[in-house]
Amino acid sequence: MKAIYLDNNATTRVDPSVVEAMLPFFTEHFGNASSAHSFGAEVGTAVKAARQQLQQLLGATHDHEIIYTSGGTESDNAAILSALEALPDRNEIVTSKVEHPAILSLCEHLEKTGRAKVHFIGVDSSGQLDIDAYRAALSDKVAVVSLMWANNETGTIFPVEGLAELAKEHGALFHTDAVQAVGKTPISLKDSAIDMLSLSGHKLHGPKGIGALYVKKGARFKPLIRGGHQERARRGGTENVPAIIGLGKAAELALQHMAEEQGRVKELRDRLEKAVLQRVPNCIVNGDRHDRLPNTTNIAFEYVESEAILLHLNRGGVAASSGSACTSGSMEPSHVLKAMAIPEAALHGAVRFSFSRDNVSEDVDRVVEALPGIVEKLREMSPFWADAEKKTNDSKPVFA
Amino acid sequence: MKAIYLDNNATTRVDPSVVEAMLPFFTEHFGNASSAHSFGAEVGTAVKAARQQLQQLLGATHDHEIIYTSGGTESDNAAILSALEALPDRNEIVTSKVEHPAILSLCEHLEKTGRAKVHFIGVDSSGQLDIDAYRAALSDKVAVVSLMWANNETGTIFPVEGLAELAKEHGALFHTDAVQAVGKTPISLKDSAIDMLSLSGHKLHGPKGIGALYVKKGARFKPLIRGGHQERARRGGTENVPAIIGLGKAAELALQHMAEEQGRVKELRDRLEKAVLQRVPNCIVNGDRHDRLPNTTNIAFEYVESEAILLHLNRGGVAASSGSACTSGSMEPSHVLKAMAIPEAALHGAVRFSFSRDNVSEDVDRVVEALPGIVEKLREMSPFWADAEKKTNDSKPVFA
Ligand SMILES: Cc1ncc(COP(=O)(O)O)c(C=O)c1O
Ligand SMILES: Cc1ncc(COP(=O)(O)O)c(C=O)c1O
Repeated sequence: MKAIYLDNNATTRVDPSVVEAMLPFFTEHFGNASSAHSFGAEVGTAVKAARQQLQQLLGATHDHEIIYTSGGTESDNAAILSALEALPDRNEIVTSKVEHPAILSLCEHLEKTGRAKVHFIGVDSSGQLDIDAYRAALSDKVAVVSLMWANNETGTIFPVEGLAELAKEHGALFHTDAVQAVGKTPISLKDSAIDMLSLSGHKLHGPKGIGALYVKKGARFKPLIRGGHQERARRGGTENVPAIIGLGKAAELALQHMAEEQGRVKELRDRLEKAVLQRVPNCIVNGDRHDRLPNTTNIAFEYVESEAILLHLNRGGVAASSGSACTSGSMEPSHVLKAMAIPEAALHGAVRFSFSRDNVSEDVDRVVEALPGIVEKLREMSPFWADAEKKTNDSKPVFA
Repeated sequence: MKAIYLDNNATTRVDPSVVEAMLPFFTEHFGNASSAHSFGAEVGTAVKAARQQLQQLLGATHDHEIIYTSGGTESDNAAILSALEALPDRNEIVTSKVEHPAILSLCEHLEKTGRAKVHFIGVDSSGQLDIDAYRAALSDKVAVVSLMWANNETGTIFPVEGLAELAKEHGALFHTDAVQAVGKTPISLKDSAIDMLSLSGHKLHGPKGIGALYVKKGARFKPLIRGGHQERARRGGTENVPAIIGLGKAAELALQHMAEEQGRVKELRDRLEKAVLQRVPNCIVNGDRHDRLPNTTNIAFEYVESEAILLHLNRGGVAASSGSACTSGSMEPSHVLKAMAIPEAALHGAVRFSFSRDNVSEDVDRVVEALPGIVEKLREMSPFWADAEKKTNDSKPVFA
């Protein structure tokens, strides 16, 4: 039985044509991009072309606005720490309660060690930012605002372009963690107020171990990793040539598939969501009904443990997730859903299904077939379910 | 005409069997190693095995003494910054003048910004550390000593195990940049006083974009990059699975080829060195006659610019280098040779030939054929050469 992968927000399959593009750079064109001889020159040219492919996907003005990093986490860390160093007169950070651990754990550390004061802005039940609290936190003490473009657990999209303009009014740098957005939703940075943006190759069918930090021309930047003059002296370390080439190809493909992402992939997601809500009572969709990634649905099943659902799905050959992979295994309820104040009965039963262009219609069928039985069986064993008030969901997705 | 690659200290060709080991992890076993489902589990097992392969090469006690990073530069930065954070009562760093920019530019930055006082210990004309100055710099104010195992430009090997013991006497952490040593010279960390060691995949026929920082069990460590709980919460970011697998395979191969490195590869290097010194007057070998990497020779040709030699070699299909790739292109003489006080006439004419197991005997023949003519022609155009005192070199390597 074919295994079904619905955990594309954790990581995606590398597109075979990305691997093909990378392959010559391991054993044939293996030079160091910074070397002056022919082995270096041929590689330098390819890296330049790949940078432009990524520039296109981001709608950036210059290709040198892109700094290659080892992934989304490094990009996030580099952005925040750079801002604190570049604006030494300011020591506050504004972020949200629903950011990825790559932002949150760094911010918590900076606060704990007294290096910054951090405002963690809350969200409403759809995961949307509390704009009043955001405005109130902004001041000329804020070095950097970091707000994610799209949430990895629920897919909720923040209106980052507008949020960036508000930050600018106070002279703060604006960073967005767009790791889940890039490749799934159109992005054009040319005329935006966004100073910095993080992305990660492996979330868009590119390789793991490569990411980028976009830094707008003119925005101040201080390196996290110092060494040679690579990346215009903004990130030391021998260029990861095959991965840079792969990310370039992945960016090109993402542009080509953008309509499919917003069309066919979204339809798969919507059909799954609708069918599950029809067949399984007492469940809700977590996230923003209107502003949401096309590939993600987070469904909370009341009175069940998500880990139990996932275990049974996995036995049936279906891979999904309860939240971010880096925290999976822990039984703590998701910090994102807690911030959204999901009702207690649903908090522990949330399952994220995240699609990609690799998914097909049969994948949805398989889940829709398996899931109602799994949830029913688990609920039969739950003491709380017996006492619960049974609800039938509407035929349309029901949002919290 | 086959191009000849003698710049293996800049980067190496990925071994075809390393690529083969990596391939399934791009499109087939592409899961996130931290995911709880089957796609994650199969990958987690492979990562564990690869970690043990690397542990073997290092002769480390535990596989969890290895923290994967994006390369040598990140490992170096992480080691130094961790030590400053872990030992907040100490704010001095001891390092040498001949370290790689991954250490030097960070240390210069820390000094410039007042975050640390740095002792840059000098070297003698063979590139060996000034031990008296080293001893004098040690005190209980030193948080970390960082001294490289082997120099990337000359191949000179520092007696790091002994140097580490001296550092321990003062309670300082000891880090070694072993990026050029790992895979070329046997290493056994089990019983050493070394707390931290940096290595990089692409220097040992592994992939670019992956490295490791060894941190001895019990040594205090603070993460450079914070995020999820990967690497036992010591380095956030989705695991770079294919590269980790590739580095594991590269480590296994390096162990298998260690005798070849110290035998056949060394013989190629020695033959080149001897032949060049026989045929070209007025040149010297930079580096330590006794303690030197088996694959590296740095030959300084008096009264010629190394960039001119390299250009002509490159036209003849031979790739070599004047120093570290990250600074190539700049006409500044090497900081390593400056620290060694190489005579002015030779300082600008140093060429590094670095071999690997990919090289064959004909590679040496080609260089030996081409080089004397190149140097002679260039010297004919040099006003200084006309006035110079012509020397014939011994038939054995002549060290400065
Ligand atoms: C929103 C978000 N930010 C950052 C990251 C971290 O990216 P990476 O795993 O490439 O370091 C992830 C995924 O893990 C993510 O979903
Ligand atoms: C001695 C030494 N240290 C550190 C590095 C940096 O390693 P990487 O390029 O993998 O970041 C290199 C090579 O570039 C090196 O030769």
